[in-house]
Amino acid sequence: MRIEVLNTGSELLLGTTMNTHGGWFGQELFKLGLRVQRQTTVPDGDAIREALAECVGRADVVLVTGGLGPTSDDITREATAAVLGAELIEDEAAMRSLEAYFALRGYEMSPDNRKQAQVPVGADVLPNPNGTAPGIYVPPRLNGAANCAVFLLPGPPRELYPMFHAEVMPRLKALSGGETAEEVLELKFAGLGESAIHHGVDALLAEIPNLEVGYCARTSEVDVRLIGNAEAIAKGREIVLAAFGDRCFSEDGSSLEEVVVGCFSERGLKLAIAESCTGGLIASRVTDVPGSSTVLTYGFVSYANEAKRDLLGVSWDDLQRVGAVSETVAKQMAEGALKASGADVAVSVTGIAGPGGGTEEKPVGTVFLALAIKGGVTQVRRERYVRDRLAFKLTVSQTALEMVLRAGERLRRG
Amino acid sequence: MRIEVLNTGSELLLGTTMNTHGGWFGQELFKLGLRVQRQTTVPDGDAIREALAECVGRADVVLVTGGLGPTSDDITREATAAVLGAELIEDEAAMRSLEAYFALRGYEMSPDNRKQAQVPVGADVLPNPNGTAPGIYVPPRLNGAANCAVFLLPGPPRELYPMFHAEVMPRLKALSGGETAEEVLELKFAGLGESAIHHGVDALLAEIPNLEVGYCARTSEVDVRLIGNAEAIAKGREIVLAAFGDRCFSEDGSSLEEVVVGCFSERGLKLAIAESCTGGLIASRVTDVPGSSTVLTYGFVSYANEAKRDLLGVSWDDLQRVGAVSETVAKQMAEGALKASGADVAVSVTGIAGPGGGTEEKPVGTVFLALAIKGGVTQVRRERYVRDRLAFKLTVSQTALEMVLRAGERLRRG
Repeated sequence: MRIEVLNTGSELLLGTTMNTHGGWFGQELFKLGLRVQRQTTVPDGDAIREALAECVGRADVVLVTGGLGPTSDDITREATAAVLGAELIEDEAAMRSLEAYFALRGYEMSPDNRKQAQVPVGADVLPNPNGTAPGIYVPPRLNGAANCAVFLLPGPPRELYPMFHAEVMPRLKALSGGETAEEVLELKFAGLGESAIHHGVDALLAEIPNLEVGYCARTSEVDVRLIGNAEAIAKGREIVLAAFGDRCFSEDGSSLEEVVVGCFSERGLKLAIAESCTGGLIASRVTDVPGSSTVLTYGFVSYANEAKRDLLGVSWDDLQRVGAVSETVAKQMAEGALKASGADVAVSVTGIAGPGGGTEEKPVGTVFLALAIKGGVTQVRRERYVRDRLAFKLTVSQTALEMVLRAGERLRRG
Repeated sequence: MRIEVLNTGSELLLGTTMNTHGGWFGQELFKLGLRVQRQTTVPDGDAIREALAECVGRADVVLVTGGLGPTSDDITREATAAVLGAELIEDEAAMRSLEAYFALRGYEMSPDNRKQAQVPVGADVLPNPNGTAPGIYVPPRLNGAANCAVFLLPGPPRELYPMFHAEVMPRLKALSGGETAEEVLELKFAGLGESAIHHGVDALLAEIPNLEVGYCARTSEVDVRLIGNAEAIAKGREIVLAAFGDRCFSEDGSSLEEVVVGCFSERGLKLAIAESCTGGLIASRVTDVPGSSTVLTYGFVSYANEAKRDLLGVSWDDLQRVGAVSETVAKQMAEGALKASGADVAVSVTGIAGPGGGTEEKPVGTVFLALAIKGGVTQVRRERYVRDRLAFKLTVSQTALEMVLRAGERLRRG
C-alpha cells in the first residue's frame, strides 16, 4: 500500500513553523507495519490542488494536513473536491459539532466558520474534539479518476494526533488488510547514544529471521523498535536487554515521566524537586502526567543564590566559597528539598546552561545532580552536556528523572 | 525563480531523524527574497531519480540533500547524472580533498570513498570542510533536457549549513539577478483566536495591493504574517494594530517568554512565579531564554496544599474553606511569592488541569491567575480553558506570561 503525506502551509516553507508531521506520520505508520513513500510540502493556494492531483495519481492513501481553518488561505477542502471531482455540501453533523464547540466555550461562532462544515459528497466527517476544523475521509472508488483514499487532517499537532489515533489508524488498518499482521515492541533507553546501542546489538539482531529493527534517537533517549512475529520479537528483546537492560525504562511506549509517576504512585512515594539550571522543566514534565499530584508535592525553582539559601537552606558561605554550580551546593539543595517537603526522594540540579556563565574549571554544560533519600546517603553526579540551551535543559531533566526512577525502584526492593 | 528542495533519506520518512532542512532552507532563502515553492522527501533508492526528474521539470533551481555518502544506498550522484543525461567522472581536486580529509584525521580512506569524488562532467565541486562528501553544482543549460540549476548537498546540518553559506548563496544571488527582495513582518498576538483576527482585518488587508497575508494559529497565540514591499507592509501593520494592537506582543519573531525577559531585564525588574496547575512550565519557559537568571529569582511549584502554606504562606483555613482553586488562594499565592522573593512582580496560577478533579462549581479547565505588584493591588482573573492536559498547561502559561508582560510594561510607564 503506497502512502504519501502532503503537508500544506506557507509557514512550513518559510521556516517560521517547523514541519514535524513528516517524521511523526512515519513513526506512527511504522507501528502498523506501513511506510510513507513520499512527503511533500506546498504553500497555501493553488499549489495544493496541483500537488494533490499528483499524489492521488501515484498513491493508494494520501494524508493531507493543514488548510482546514476558517480563513481565506484555507482551501484544502475546495482543492480536494476539485481534484476528486466531488461536490462540496454542508454536513449537518459537522455543523452541529462546530456550534457545540463554540457554545461550550461561550464564544460566538464567526460566519467564516460555516465553511469548516463543508465536505465532499459521500465523505466521512472525522470529529475534532480539540479544535474547530473537522477532519474529512474520502474513501477510494468514490470518484472515477482515482482509486485512492484521501484523509484531510488539521495541522496543529494537538488536534492532529488524537484524530489520527481515533479516526485514521482504524481506517488504515482496514485499508491495508493483511499488511499489518506484524507486532511491534518499543524499548526505551535513557543515557545511551544511538551508535552505542546500534554497535552493541545490530549485528546480532540482523541474524534473527524476519525481524525489522529501527532506532530512534531523541534527546538523551534512544528508542529501539522491533517489528516481526512474536517469536522474532522475543529473540530480539532478549538480545537488546542482555546488553542494555539496566538502562531500559519502558517497554510499552510510556515516557520517562510516566514511568516515574507510575512507580512512585504505586508505592505511595513522594517526590520533591529542586531545580536551578532546568528552571522548572523537571517539575513540568512530571506534572504533564495525570495523577502526578499524588507524587510531586514541592518543587523549588531556585535560580538565584538567595532562593537556594531561603527555600532550601543552602549555606551562604558555601555558595560564596565553592559557587552555586558545585557538588556541595547540589547536595545541600537535595537535602534541603527533602527536609522542607517531607518527601521520600528529592532530586536537585545545578549547572551552567549557557550560552554565558562558563569558566575554565566549570565550562558551559557542566551540571551537578544530587539525589537525597529519606534515611539514606545523598549521591551526587557531575556531568557535562555540550549542546544548546534547550537541549541541555532536556538532557539534564532526563538524567534527573532516570536517577529518580532508579531510586523509586530500589525503595520497593528495600 | 522557482526553487524546490528535495530531501533524500529513508530515516526522514521513518521519523527516526527529524527533517529540519525544509524550514531551514526557507529561512535562509527568504533573506535573499526567495521562496521555496515545494519541498519533497523521498527514501533512498530509485525514488530519488523519479522525484528529481519531476523537480527538474518544474523548477529553476533544485536543492538536493543527502545520499552523497560512501555506502550502497547513497545514489544521489548517479541519479542526478541519469536525470540530466550527464556522464560521471572522477574529479581530481575532489579526490585530493578527500585524501587530505582522511590524512588530517589519521584515518585510512576506504575504497568506497572513491565514489565520493565522482561528479557530472562540467559540474562544480563544492568543498566540504566538515565531512567527506563534497557538494556538487550543476549549472543550468548544461544539458538539453532541462534549464534548471541543481545543487547536491550533504545531509548533516553541520556539513550542509557552512557549505550553503559559502557556496550556494553566492550562486543563488547570481542566478536570481534583479529579483526584488520582499520583506516580511510577523506580528504575534496572545489571547485571541485565529478567526477573531481574521474576521476583524482580513477584508481590509485584502484591499492592499501586493500584500500577502498568512495566519498561523498556535496554542493560545496567533501569528499574522505580512509579506510585500515596505509600503504594503506598513499599511497592513497599521490595520492589524489598530484592531488588535493591545494584544500584540511581538513584531520581530520573538516568543512571549523572550519578550518578557527582555522587558524585565531592560528595566531591572525581578519576577517570581508560584505555580500549581502548570507545575513549573511557566518558570521553565522563562528559563529557556538566555539571560533569564537576572529576571527570574524564585519559582515555587506548590502542587500540594502544604507547599502553598509552607512556601507561600497561604492560610490553611482558607485552603480548607474555599479550596486551592479559588480567587482567595490565587491572591495569597501571588502575594506570598512576592514577599518571599522580594521580586517586583509575582504571578500565580491555581487550577484543575484534569482529566480528574473537576466539580460542578469548578469544572476541569477552571483556573485562577493572580498578579501581585510591589506596592500595588493584586489582580485576579478566573478563566476556563477546555482542552487536554498539556494544552491546558500551555494556555495557562501563555495567559500568565501575557499578564506579567503587561505589568512590566506598565512599570516602565509608571
